[in-house]
Amino acid sequence: MNLDTVVQDLVIANRILAREDVVDAYGHVSIRHPDNPKHFFIARSLAPDLVERGDIVELGLDGQPVRDETRALYLERFIHAAIYEARPDVQAVVHAHAEDILPFGIAQATPLRPVIHSGSFIGAHVPVWDIADKFGDTDLLVRNMDHGRDLARCLGDNRVALMRGHGFASAGRSLIEVVRLSVYLPRNARALMRATQLGGEIKYLSEGEIAARNAGYSPYSTETWRAWEYWANKAGCGHLVTRPDHKHEHKKG
Amino acid sequence: MNLDTVVQDLVIANRILAREDVVDAYGHVSIRHPDNPKHFFIARSLAPDLVERGDIVELGLDGQPVRDETRALYLERFIHAAIYEARPDVQAVVHAHAEDILPFGIAQATPLRPVIHSGSFIGAHVPVWDIADKFGDTDLLVRNMDHGRDLARCLGDNRVALMRGHGFASAGRSLIEVVRLSVYLPRNARALMRATQLGGEIKYLSEGEIAARNAGYSPYSTETWRAWEYWANKAGCGHLVTRPDHKHEHKKG
Amino acid sequence: MNLDTVVQDLVIANRILAREDVVDAYGHVSIRHPDNPKHFFIARSLAPDLVERGDIVELGLDGQPVRDETRALYLERFIHAAIYEARPDVQAVVHAHAEDILPFGIAQATPLRPVIHSGSFIGAHVPVWDIADKFGDTDLLVRNMDHGRDLARCLGDNRVALMRGHGFASAGRSLIEVVRLSVYLPRNARALMRATQLGGEIKYLSEGEIAARNAGYSPYSTETWRAWEYWANKAGCGHLVTRPDHKHEHKKG
Amino acid sequence: MNLDTVVQDLVIANRILAREDVVDAYGHVSIRHPDNPKHFFIARSLAPDLVERGDIVELGLDGQPVRDETRALYLERFIHAAIYEARPDVQAVVHAHAEDILPFGIAQATPLRPVIHSGSFIGAHVPVWDIADKFGDTDLLVRNMDHGRDLARCLGDNRVALMRGHGFASAGRSLIEVVRLSVYLPRNARALMRATQLGGEIKYLSEGEIAARNAGYSPYSTETWRAWEYWANKAGCGHLVTRPDHKHEHKKG
Repeated sequence: MNLDTVVQDLVIANRILAREDVVDAYGHVSIRHPDNPKHFFIARSLAPDLVERGDIVELGLDGQPVRDETRALYLERFIHAAIYEARPDVQAVVHAHAEDILPFGIAQATPLRPVIHSGSFIGAHVPVWDIADKFGDTDLLVRNMDHGRDLARCLGDNRVALMRGHGFASAGRSLIEVVRLSVYLPRNARALMRATQLGGEIKYLSEGEIAARNAGYSPYSTETWRAWEYWANKAGCGHLVTRPDHKHEHKKG
Repeated sequence: MNLDTVVQDLVIANRILAREDVVDAYGHVSIRHPDNPKHFFIARSLAPDLVERGDIVELGLDGQPVRDETRALYLERFIHAAIYEARPDVQAVVHAHAEDILPFGIAQATPLRPVIHSGSFIGAHVPVWDIADKFGDTDLLVRNMDHGRDLARCLGDNRVALMRGHGFASAGRSLIEVVRLSVYLPRNARALMRATQLGGEIKYLSEGEIAARNAGYSPYSTETWRAWEYWANKAGCGHLVTRPDHKHEHKKG
Repeated sequence: MNLDTVVQDLVIANRILAREDVVDAYGHVSIRHPDNPKHFFIARSLAPDLVERGDIVELGLDGQPVRDETRALYLERFIHAAIYEARPDVQAVVHAHAEDILPFGIAQATPLRPVIHSGSFIGAHVPVWDIADKFGDTDLLVRNMDHGRDLARCLGDNRVALMRGHGFASAGRSLIEVVRLSVYLPRNARALMRATQLGGEIKYLSEGEIAARNAGYSPYSTETWRAWEYWANKAGCGHLVTRPDHKHEHKKG
Repeated sequence: MNLDTVVQDLVIANRILAREDVVDAYGHVSIRHPDNPKHFFIARSLAPDLVERGDIVELGLDGQPVRDETRALYLERFIHAAIYEARPDVQAVVHAHAEDILPFGIAQATPLRPVIHSGSFIGAHVPVWDIADKFGDTDLLVRNMDHGRDLARCLGDNRVALMRGHGFASAGRSLIEVVRLSVYLPRNARALMRATQLGGEIKYLSEGEIAARNAGYSPYSTETWRAWEYWANKAGCGHLVTRPDHKHEHKKG
């Protein structure tokens, strides 16, 4: 995968997350540099729906740009830096405020766990990070590496951490995985909220089911790709999609 | 009805189900071959919103293609094959994950039953199939004929089976019927969820009402056709609609 | 107001109700003939979003066309005929299935009453009509004048009657009024549902507040017209709007 | 900031609030005259989505136009006049009926308070004004300065007052702030409603967190501007955006 494709895919990911209401003016997605694990790519400070290739910048694991950069950067880029630092297995990170996950960080009676098969990738355990536990009264933003590292510690080896009163951070083994996980996370949250309202016992996915789904996952499988292609088309950037070792295919673009 | 029309209608059905949020990147719709009840048509592995005529393939009741086929197929095509095998009366099948039916498979305190007249076609009884009952920990996908036949057994002679933590399968006497049923299923689910939240006694449709509505149904009645035409227009394919023995009519196309 | 304007306004009303999710493939709106109170105008059997001038037909108070008509008519046109027959004050009628009013007909613990100022026009009392009370097991459709007259009796001198498991019928002193009432009816229903979920005492609008709002209402006031113009623009037919004795004004058309 | 820019920004604010479902046919936004604190700008009586430069009028703190004006004005312009009169710190005002805040004015068991970081700007206390407390049975509209002053008294030095059965009034130190506050107010309301339904203890933002966020706020910061630019693009008026002392930048316009 060359860098051009990496940057292009990151642009697509920005647009998909905007179109699917995972991000709005705020929220961001990044991808680790494929050849240099100490660097990652992320947009400059801009609403994801407006991101183009020229808006992508390269940062180090301290959250600072690796080249001269005069443009403003996301205040919370330390979320990404700290997760890449702590988790060598992670290739892509999303931070967002998707509305329907918020209640699970605010009212902690019902833990957010997978109840639908497309939600399995959030993992069996979704910890809730409260910035106040360590840092007291703040503006809730992850403004430095100390904040970021505390969040990464809470995330542990999970896929998603909720951030109390704020949003979530998710970590994936590929860009496609983290986008898919972030799209289905609010859907799983809605299904669980509504099931809770219906009452009676909740049937969560079992540990074995989560493991079985995880084992069957591959970022370039037909099934995974089907969603990526679909979402890119919906977001109006189907024409940007390229698939390694497959013929370029897009419709309605 | 010639095969060209069958394939065209299946393309329209794909687009309608996408536009009405019954399917997204996942989910599929099929129609039995009108002249060969041992075959059925379904798209190759592709998001329904992107399906065109060339994407339709012909499968046998074992879920395998009847001609050489190099393109990837839906993993869960066995849902369709097994229902056609078990139910000679069924001419069309939908499998989807429409969000608002999910809670009824997860929290089984409140059975999903018709509460609105447009929901009557889901039938008086909607069984819930749990793949784990017979197959233990799986990835929840209907990956083979064994899975499919177990689902078809649970469906019995009903119109819809919920699939725990996954979605639903619906079976109709015509493509138009199964599409309509699948569009109104989540609406009926929402009405029931919200009525439950208001509290007090729920007035379900009576058995007699469900039977009366069923008796009055015809896939090419003016009323049925009105919805098909409307949904096709909304989905941007009003120009593809053809009505047997009626003048072709479409607007805003 | 000449007939051309009446028909044009009825086309606009159809499109507005479709755009505002009050009707979908089903549901209809009618207006009494301004010069002949025993006739009314309504579309032939067609989804409201697709209605054009040539689709408008003229019916008598028996629900039958007053001219030769070969095109199919709405099965439930008797809702309109019976309300016009019973209520000389009513100039326009809507029948629809707007989703968020349905729970109040299904679970009758919480009566639907105005809780927001824009909901005041539904009136202090919204009766619930159950077709089964008099006619037993039916397909729930208002298929003849007997059904229609029973519904009209239940409506009495109110503005809206809910129809159990089906939808609502609303009656207004003008087309603009009945459209506005029908648009704000589901919004009032949602506000009441959610307030109920928050718990505690519900502050309904008082009788005096409902009367005060009613007294201040005029179908061609600046405030009423503002909504009509706005909705027509949203529905893509701002260019069809004409206002008696005012300069024609539309934007973004 | 010259007057041309002020008027242009007010047009953008109207379109953003419409696109973000804060206003519909009703609701309005105003800005104080930058050079004459006894005047303010607001649209003539028109749905916000249709407002253009020529629709902006200049009113005094009595709610009356400062120049000859034959066009109809908003009935409730006294909300704005009275708040500007009472609060010299306020530079911009919104009045709207955003649906998801309504339940908190109707069922007063759960006070509306910040639970998400983007909701912090509504302030720690959101009073509920009931016009009936002082004026008895009215049509609920703020029709004169007496009504407006009573509302302004209830608002006190807070940012938002709910209006029972009606909507809200919000006051900001800049146009961008009041728009942002008004967009995130319903989102905070939804998060709180759903958290309440999940049950258990609600973690509100602390006073210290609200203060910390407030301290960090600046109307022309990169982060604030990012949302303004994004919303303007979504609302189709990205090309109208101008940023003082920055290069003009817009995309997808």
